[in-house]
Amino acid sequence: MTDILLRELDEAGILRLTLNDVGRRNALSEAMLAVLTDTFTEAGADPAVRVIVLAANGPAYCAGHDLKEMTAGREHSDRGQAYFAKVMSMCATMMQGIVNCPKPVIAEVTGVATAAGCQLVASCDLAIASETSLFSTPGVHIGLFCSTPMVALSRNVSNKHAMEMLLTGDMTSASRAAEIGLVNRTVAPDQLQDATMEMAGKIASKSSMTLATGKRAFYAQREMPLSEAYDYASQVMVENMLAHDAEEGIAAFIEKRVPQWKDA
Amino acid sequence: MTDILLRELDEAGILRLTLNDVGRRNALSEAMLAVLTDTFTEAGADPAVRVIVLAANGPAYCAGHDLKEMTAGREHSDRGQAYFAKVMSMCATMMQGIVNCPKPVIAEVTGVATAAGCQLVASCDLAIASETSLFSTPGVHIGLFCSTPMVALSRNVSNKHAMEMLLTGDMTSASRAAEIGLVNRTVAPDQLQDATMEMAGKIASKSSMTLATGKRAFYAQREMPLSEAYDYASQVMVENMLAHDAEEGIAAFIEKRVPQWKDA
Amino acid sequence: MTDILLRELDEAGILRLTLNDVGRRNALSEAMLAVLTDTFTEAGADPAVRVIVLAANGPAYCAGHDLKEMTAGREHSDRGQAYFAKVMSMCATMMQGIVNCPKPVIAEVTGVATAAGCQLVASCDLAIASETSLFSTPGVHIGLFCSTPMVALSRNVSNKHAMEMLLTGDMTSASRAAEIGLVNRTVAPDQLQDATMEMAGKIASKSSMTLATGKRAFYAQREMPLSEAYDYASQVMVENMLAHDAEEGIAAFIEKRVPQWKDA
Repeated sequence: MTDILLRELDEAGILRLTLNDVGRRNALSEAMLAVLTDTFTEAGADPAVRVIVLAANGPAYCAGHDLKEMTAGREHSDRGQAYFAKVMSMCATMMQGIVNCPKPVIAEVTGVATAAGCQLVASCDLAIASETSLFSTPGVHIGLFCSTPMVALSRNVSNKHAMEMLLTGDMTSASRAAEIGLVNRTVAPDQLQDATMEMAGKIASKSSMTLATGKRAFYAQREMPLSEAYDYASQVMVENMLAHDAEEGIAAFIEKRVPQWKDA
Repeated sequence: MTDILLRELDEAGILRLTLNDVGRRNALSEAMLAVLTDTFTEAGADPAVRVIVLAANGPAYCAGHDLKEMTAGREHSDRGQAYFAKVMSMCATMMQGIVNCPKPVIAEVTGVATAAGCQLVASCDLAIASETSLFSTPGVHIGLFCSTPMVALSRNVSNKHAMEMLLTGDMTSASRAAEIGLVNRTVAPDQLQDATMEMAGKIASKSSMTLATGKRAFYAQREMPLSEAYDYASQVMVENMLAHDAEEGIAAFIEKRVPQWKDA
Repeated sequence: MTDILLRELDEAGILRLTLNDVGRRNALSEAMLAVLTDTFTEAGADPAVRVIVLAANGPAYCAGHDLKEMTAGREHSDRGQAYFAKVMSMCATMMQGIVNCPKPVIAEVTGVATAAGCQLVASCDLAIASETSLFSTPGVHIGLFCSTPMVALSRNVSNKHAMEMLLTGDMTSASRAAEIGLVNRTVAPDQLQDATMEMAGKIASKSSMTLATGKRAFYAQREMPLSEAYDYASQVMVENMLAHDAEEGIAAFIEKRVPQWKDA
């Protein structure tokens, strides 16, 4: 049996995850959802992991939900209602597991990212895409609007751009995805891994405590009114200032030397 | 008497509305607001309508409120207070009627869209603009800030882009409108109708139930915190999965055939 | 002793403020925060001021908090906790003083804007940047995540763009800052002041009452759900219609003459 998710942790603290269910186009099957959720939870708690890259093998980055599993679910006496609710809950938990993971997560997008696969890219903190990759939320083609993918999509791109993808189901090119903010940038396919690992390396050199503090605060303050966001973020700054890594980082900056993080 | 709003429904279910009060630059007079509100309500409930295109005759797409009507309102004993409140309420009802209409609405923007006319474009789900069209929120020129237009504008473009339009009152070119997300894209004037009708045709071929479900969920989840949005959207997905059109759509996809929607 | 903030008010009502603590790279020291807060408060209440430009002398637009002052604060018995809380509160008050100032504020960005200096640009209503200017939120380099800068940054640019700046600490070029919406546009360094003053002049020619009404309403409605935003903005429009400057502005427009604002 082949692992559907490959893990590789290097000395810099970069955990490279590779979706590896190539025959199912890396679909978010129950098994894939479970292993991803567990992996993000464990990596979040593991001091050896400083940043996570989410890559994929095969022509599809991720094809979204496993439609054959979903269809099989219809054979239950409730026509699948309980099963669909379970899968949707597992998927929402996994996606929010990325957002809530204290380690930054970078999508390295090769190939086609569709439906919940597009949501996966949108849910990562950062994304670099191959120039040949493609994105879509094609649920309308099969009568099933991409309603959960749009939660993440609409928090990345503006309303009309999201609506165009959702209502037409059309493919969006990598360059267009970069223009509208779904990915940070595009690179040539043969430079993709280098570009992602370079960005990951840069982030891995920072204080993990600081990254975790900032990532959590980013998503929390984003949902607050301005004045509440400032009260909250100011308190986060004060706590951050009192932590070892800020004291060390500021001292190193003033003394023009390399800082020594507590957990490095 | 000429109709100020032309209606044409084709066999594909595309309802083509054309603003036709050319002499008043398609201003949102009381009469125009009333007919638009009624038309969106009726089209929303009419199974024969699958998608709506909002086009315009004449050099102006829509000039916003009818300033002569507004000025005449000042002659009331309350200096127009009750009248202005009525017109603003009618306008907000119409704009939200587009957002709440279960059918997708595409603006086909020829010419100049100003003030509440610019808001009209911003309120549509999608917009394709002629390369020669222009956009502005020029209320500051006449001492009347475009406060209601900015509600829709600021939900399409980022803060500084919205503020530039609102504080200067300057015209924004079509290409700039596309860059900042106010419209989806621009095309040559002589290709505008074809481009819009092609997009409309694509959307009209989808399940109306699915489109209605998704459009409603889009705007609803957009105003929720992330976790609440996922709970809500997951429930929408489960209900969507149990509907005929998803069962049919997924089966057709697996069997590689064209789906037959319930209401098509 | 040199003034750390230069003030120049011209006949058009443009208050040109220039950060002038060049030796400290215009850092937001306690003294600078205090003088900026007072200046925005006073300018907001001064009828002679119609619009504010925030420029800077020296190679740095603004370097953010004064790290030497912050570090000195650590010598208190509480390791600086009370002091950091005080400085963060002063800074959040100043930044919100820009947002709440009834006069539009335009950042004229020369040189490097980092950390709270980048937040300063993000907090202004509008920003024009020299093509050679640079932006960053480099707190991660020193173990202190730019948590308060991100409050303003994330209200200007989309999530992945904000996260890239925050997690890597990398410099963002002026052209990229314009692409992602952090500034309105870039111009050649020798044309920057002209471009900013031209934009300021355009805004200064409008009714101050109208600008104040609109700016306040912009930020207020931005935090409301759509339906509430429309109720609020409609009421703002009615009150605006009843004010002298709208009556005069609309009459002047219909009569094709230049309006005479009440406070001009």
